[in-house]
Amino acid sequence: MITSLSNPQVKNVILLQKKAKERNKQKVFVVEGIKMVMEAPRRELETVYISQSFFEKYERELPVDFPAVLVSDKVFSSMSDTVTPQGILGIVHQPSIQKEAVLQGRNRQGGRCFLMLEHLSDPGNLGTMIRTGEGVGVTGIFMSRDTVDVYNPKVIRSTMGSIYRVPFLYVDDLYGLAREMQNQQITIYAAHLKGDRTCYEGDYTKDTCFLVGNEANGLSKELAVVADIKMKIPMEGQVESLNAAIAATVCMYEAYRQNIKNRAAPLE
Amino acid sequence: MITSLSNPQVKNVILLQKKAKERNKQKVFVVEGIKMVMEAPRRELETVYISQSFFEKYERELPVDFPAVLVSDKVFSSMSDTVTPQGILGIVHQPSIQKEAVLQGRNRQGGRCFLMLEHLSDPGNLGTMIRTGEGVGVTGIFMSRDTVDVYNPKVIRSTMGSIYRVPFLYVDDLYGLAREMQNQQITIYAAHLKGDRTCYEGDYTKDTCFLVGNEANGLSKELAVVADIKMKIPMEGQVESLNAAIAATVCMYEAYRQNIKNRAAPLE
Repeated sequence: MITSLSNPQVKNVILLQKKAKERNKQKVFVVEGIKMVMEAPRRELETVYISQSFFEKYERELPVDFPAVLVSDKVFSSMSDTVTPQGILGIVHQPSIQKEAVLQGRNRQGGRCFLMLEHLSDPGNLGTMIRTGEGVGVTGIFMSRDTVDVYNPKVIRSTMGSIYRVPFLYVDDLYGLAREMQNQQITIYAAHLKGDRTCYEGDYTKDTCFLVGNEANGLSKELAVVADIKMKIPMEGQVESLNAAIAATVCMYEAYRQNIKNRAAPLE
Repeated sequence: MITSLSNPQVKNVILLQKKAKERNKQKVFVVEGIKMVMEAPRRELETVYISQSFFEKYERELPVDFPAVLVSDKVFSSMSDTVTPQGILGIVHQPSIQKEAVLQGRNRQGGRCFLMLEHLSDPGNLGTMIRTGEGVGVTGIFMSRDTVDVYNPKVIRSTMGSIYRVPFLYVDDLYGLAREMQNQQITIYAAHLKGDRTCYEGDYTKDTCFLVGNEANGLSKELAVVADIKMKIPMEGQVESLNAAIAATVCMYEAYRQNIKNRAAPLE
């Protein structure tokens, strides 16, 4: 059992929790809690750190092939990003995802639905979009390089496991990618406060990509021009805009509603 | 100018930022930033604290009748709940809202749409619901007593000003209130993972109340039974549930979509 805070493994986990650069150099990320560790693809799980208390309580329920390392509660507490740690965290390999593979994905309705995020800065928003995205069968999420790091502990936590299942990719040139999508008959809809249609006027039964911009500033002009359709989300009152994850949800769920409306099979 | 951290006014603001009990005893709350202070109903604004830097920069733009108190930057920093304070915060009187008044409210479509929240615990979720609620013309929000304090600084911040405009009320007996609503022909729809209809099957052009439960545990059985209709939000993948604010958004926006669909006037 590791009991020293100066143990190099412990110091490395703390570094991985805090530094995106280090996560990307080592090509891993940290997940916390029993649900996140259990849902990780087993072969991508490099190490699992377990606190003494957690081990004593759940020893019999842990898979025998777990790459587990036991640490004292005090050490675990220093490694954890949460205030009340569950006592289990895992180091997981970052997936290697190719753009072409993401573009070829299809959802249960046989269609394609993408999110393209420009300079999204709030970790909770990004995580929530990934979680909701899985729920509506989003086939992939593309992000500008200046979007918050998807392996930030807060993002991971907000995804509730969807991080393992929704393909995502950072892209240098969102504009170029949008053009490429258009060549593949994917319609680009930009969520835009000055849209000339509402989000209820699109036909999302065809291949769709939603473009969503930064929380404070929206989409850049340079990227917004690539959109086939700029659409606004109807709202009233003195509300100037919606939270970015909420705006994305309204768009994604309207797409999902259209796609499942005529589906014969009952919903699960 | 106040320069001492031990000034009683300064100490009181710090207390108000941290303690719900103190906010409720003094019947005030704290709002931060220029937007939140400027949007506050002027006669409800008790005091405005301004940092020296803010004053030097914006002196000419400040309303002359502002109940302003100047404090040093260091003092302001200690009073602020944010990491990078704008340099302006206000103490605002808590509104006194009566249940009957809330129930009589009507939105621009002439209808009633309520949110009823049971044991909501995340401040960001509550604030986002209030903000989105204003956007779709929610006429009032009722919360169980164990819901997070609506005057928590994080809630206030996430509302982006909607806190001033959407009526809300803590209620001892949500069940009883739901029964009262039903007597007024308001249909109670519970967002429920085991709903037997989807959220797209309700008729929200009639008076509607959405019941949303705790982030981790959903609605209590005791309250869920009062619902006229339990409905689930369709989702796929391995997603077990949505974030509470996201779930509320899907319901509220579907209601809004139905209500504005046939509206003759163009959307703003």
